[in-house]
Amino acid sequence: MKALLQWAVVLAAIAVNCLEAYTAGAPQSKGEPWPKPAVYQTTDSTLFLSQFNFKFTVVGEDCAILRGALGRYFKLIFYPGSQLSRSKRDALKFHPEEANMAEELLELKVNVQQKCSDGDFPEHGMDESYTLYVGGSSELVSPSIWGALRGLETFSQLTYKGQNGMLLVNETKITDKPRFAWRGVLLDSSRHFLPKKVLFENLDAMAWNKLNVFHWHIVDDQSFPYQSLLFPALSEKGAYDPYTHVYTQQDVADVIEYARVRGIRVVPEFDTPGHSQSWGPGQPGLLTQCYDKSGQPNGQFGPIDPTLNTTYPFLKQFMGEIAKVFPDKYVHLGGDEVSFSCWQSNPTIKQFMTDKGFGSDYAKLEAFYMQNLLDIVGSYGSGYLVWQEVIDNGVKIKPDTIAHVWKSSLDEVKRTTGRGLQTLYSTCWYLDYIAYGRQWPKYYSCDPQNFNGTKAQKDLVIGGELCMWGEFVDATDLISRTWPRGSAVAERLWSPEDVTDHNAAAPRIEEQRCRMVRRGLNAEPINGPGHCVDEFVP
Amino acid sequence: MKALLQWAVVLAAIAVNCLEAYTAGAPQSKGEPWPKPAVYQTTDSTLFLSQFNFKFTVVGEDCAILRGALGRYFKLIFYPGSQLSRSKRDALKFHPEEANMAEELLELKVNVQQKCSDGDFPEHGMDESYTLYVGGSSELVSPSIWGALRGLETFSQLTYKGQNGMLLVNETKITDKPRFAWRGVLLDSSRHFLPKKVLFENLDAMAWNKLNVFHWHIVDDQSFPYQSLLFPALSEKGAYDPYTHVYTQQDVADVIEYARVRGIRVVPEFDTPGHSQSWGPGQPGLLTQCYDKSGQPNGQFGPIDPTLNTTYPFLKQFMGEIAKVFPDKYVHLGGDEVSFSCWQSNPTIKQFMTDKGFGSDYAKLEAFYMQNLLDIVGSYGSGYLVWQEVIDNGVKIKPDTIAHVWKSSLDEVKRTTGRGLQTLYSTCWYLDYIAYGRQWPKYYSCDPQNFNGTKAQKDLVIGGELCMWGEFVDATDLISRTWPRGSAVAERLWSPEDVTDHNAAAPRIEEQRCRMVRRGLNAEPINGPGHCVDEFVP
Repeated sequence: MKALLQWAVVLAAIAVNCLEAYTAGAPQSKGEPWPKPAVYQTTDSTLFLSQFNFKFTVVGEDCAILRGALGRYFKLIFYPGSQLSRSKRDALKFHPEEANMAEELLELKVNVQQKCSDGDFPEHGMDESYTLYVGGSSELVSPSIWGALRGLETFSQLTYKGQNGMLLVNETKITDKPRFAWRGVLLDSSRHFLPKKVLFENLDAMAWNKLNVFHWHIVDDQSFPYQSLLFPALSEKGAYDPYTHVYTQQDVADVIEYARVRGIRVVPEFDTPGHSQSWGPGQPGLLTQCYDKSGQPNGQFGPIDPTLNTTYPFLKQFMGEIAKVFPDKYVHLGGDEVSFSCWQSNPTIKQFMTDKGFGSDYAKLEAFYMQNLLDIVGSYGSGYLVWQEVIDNGVKIKPDTIAHVWKSSLDEVKRTTGRGLQTLYSTCWYLDYIAYGRQWPKYYSCDPQNFNGTKAQKDLVIGGELCMWGEFVDATDLISRTWPRGSAVAERLWSPEDVTDHNAAAPRIEEQRCRMVRRGLNAEPINGPGHCVDEFVP
Repeated sequence: MKALLQWAVVLAAIAVNCLEAYTAGAPQSKGEPWPKPAVYQTTDSTLFLSQFNFKFTVVGEDCAILRGALGRYFKLIFYPGSQLSRSKRDALKFHPEEANMAEELLELKVNVQQKCSDGDFPEHGMDESYTLYVGGSSELVSPSIWGALRGLETFSQLTYKGQNGMLLVNETKITDKPRFAWRGVLLDSSRHFLPKKVLFENLDAMAWNKLNVFHWHIVDDQSFPYQSLLFPALSEKGAYDPYTHVYTQQDVADVIEYARVRGIRVVPEFDTPGHSQSWGPGQPGLLTQCYDKSGQPNGQFGPIDPTLNTTYPFLKQFMGEIAKVFPDKYVHLGGDEVSFSCWQSNPTIKQFMTDKGFGSDYAKLEAFYMQNLLDIVGSYGSGYLVWQEVIDNGVKIKPDTIAHVWKSSLDEVKRTTGRGLQTLYSTCWYLDYIAYGRQWPKYYSCDPQNFNGTKAQKDLVIGGELCMWGEFVDATDLISRTWPRGSAVAERLWSPEDVTDHNAAAPRIEEQRCRMVRRGLNAEPINGPGHCVDEFVP
């Protein structure tokens, strides 16, 4: 059956692709930003830039984050090959005036209005707005440093190589801010370990697409790569390898810092009580012992045991460490796909169920666990997210809990926001579910507010996340599998609600793909046959 | 409908993966070769190898191909980190005798029986057999240099890192030869240009999997990257870019040489009369002019125009160049998916149809073209392959034509072999049709001889090819999309017919994947969660 379905899908894909058989190559825009800004006006009047004359001038607040960004963006704009050398231009006797490009863009003023400090961290709800004017007196203005980062990314996308080999930019006026505050990417470093290099590459790609939350699903059943200070045995015994496949405290700090200066928050997920097999070897007694029908332990383990008095002190210590190590206010506590069968087999647990008056309703035991965990985490001042099951199963949660919808349609979003809960949507954005052909339009067309609800409900949709689960993904294929399809999600989450025309978007996402390839990222082809001008290091 | 089907496939994949949810990581074999040799015996008796003591000793014929291979394989066997350093072993006071490994493997004798010359080229039907004994007096014996290459690859796969950090190999006795002579990989460098670097990486991967034909689908509708000596305008006007996206004669020679010393044949495909849009700009008058209903040319072009007296002299010159540039006896002439609508619209062609008595049967016109082309190519002494349509449409072909079945089931193979034609199969091996999950078992289970036929028919199945079409594939994702799923095809084409148990194969393909990753190839995960011991350059 599955084979028949797959064959049907393939036949449909072939049919679609036959229709496209004679396209000479997907068209690309030139110097159009992605995601599309809220207000974006441009004229035919072009200016040119020269690496030797152009400068950023800081006219507002200043700090290390800004200076670091100016250095990064200067190098991205003036990449090797971005323009003819001065000698070549002299040889060609290039006269800008004759080409109707009288003006050289000598300077972009950068005006950050609020004080920024060297230790600032991006936060949920930070101001990411900016205005950008490129023309006579070019200036980027933003209330906060985070808006300046977004604006610099936009500016770096406006430049393009002209026919005559000059680096050009069109006169442009932009007013911009994101539609949704929470625009995330989930990576899974448990099913396959992800070396720092690929985490860094992904953070760069996120910055280039104005995505601002790295949801780090750091541990799960298969491996525990997080090297804990308080409980080193967790990774010693639970990682694929305790030396080569772990994140030391230094590694974690490096990732958080790499993200921070790009205005990206790192929200870790320590998924419990299920998805926790790898916690067992390094923390004996944490997981539930499963019993066979004759009443003997059978050697298997289940979810975390919610009935033991050792469980919650452990969690209190562990989550205390997490609250210190990860500066973001939010932590994701998981709570998905909890299997009850091991709990049901365990006599201690059965007795506990009776004592508590839960009967045989194990959802109540799950709720008991989650309530304790949420109380612990809340006591550290953290906000938290949970997968939708926690809401669906009736756990008593604080009203500022964020519900993360991953398996249900927008009906679930209607339910959670109807209960007053801030909600994130991921269901339509499981990018690990690959298929043949042009996939991005379906990601582009998914709108997390597209349900029948009140304005108050829709305002509670704080954003969404694309998910790149790791069962079949590691450093060999993560980047090409995530990008540029992730760009489609990025525009949906940043740009205004009415930016929905995927035919108009196609040449722009093609340009964005080639831009990322030029910047050194293995972003895969997205629209079919074609090429990028700057694509190979010889 | 398509969305429903895709959703059904996804649900099925989720279900399958839930069942696998608690696997700690896919198991791997140690030192087991892939593809599986014809006769393979091994004992528990291990020897160890040291980079400083081991050597290959050439006891038979000698030539540059062999010496090059010995250098490559030495470095693959003794990769950085393959063993503890001598000082580390001294510090650990490692005593092989105590570890029941009294014997060090000091030498592998290499005995090529037939003379090999520095200019030898691999050919269809070459002898790839070898015997390999590893133990007391270890020796690789092969009739030809090509079998020596296969045997060296096998030997390099037998070594594995032991628990104590030593590089080990088990006493082994192998007699091996391929089931099928033609074991190919099709790459498409027209839909996306493929830089030489990725062509080389793919050739290495092929060598590691004993695949021996690189079917280079070099040009197609979208771009013409082949830089012709006689007709430079073809790539000047037809390539995506005439400098950065072409294969110069030197590039082609480099690819052929890289393949040659690995025992891989390069069979180019110049697909006509369809799939030829990119030939038009550089060779005006070659393609059919399409006409609109009012009898005017509409600016569009169709397949090559078979009726003009300029067509065949052009082809004669062009194919003459191809016969010189590509040393292999065989060339693939395409002939697939010829659309008749443009021919039908063209008044000159309609007249030609009348004059020839073809009526309105355009398949006859296609046959007329193909017959001329085959005669031209045959006059240069080349053998040729054609896609199945050429056979299906009744073209008169020479009996030594190879039929390449790509869209039909094995019923077509039964038909073509029933007509006495050598046949290649690709239909079940379109690896560009990606889908979520463990895909390789379906490639592994496809057997090109699995049809009801006589022994004579089955003997006419000379092999098969996996296809990686380029609509969505370029240097950013080609390697991870082709490998290690291509390894499943490689074993089907090399190993004996009864090697079909994919559960037994799973740990071995996992080891093969990690082996390729260790050797620097971006071979993607294949069995689900897990890791490779040697996976990241720090």
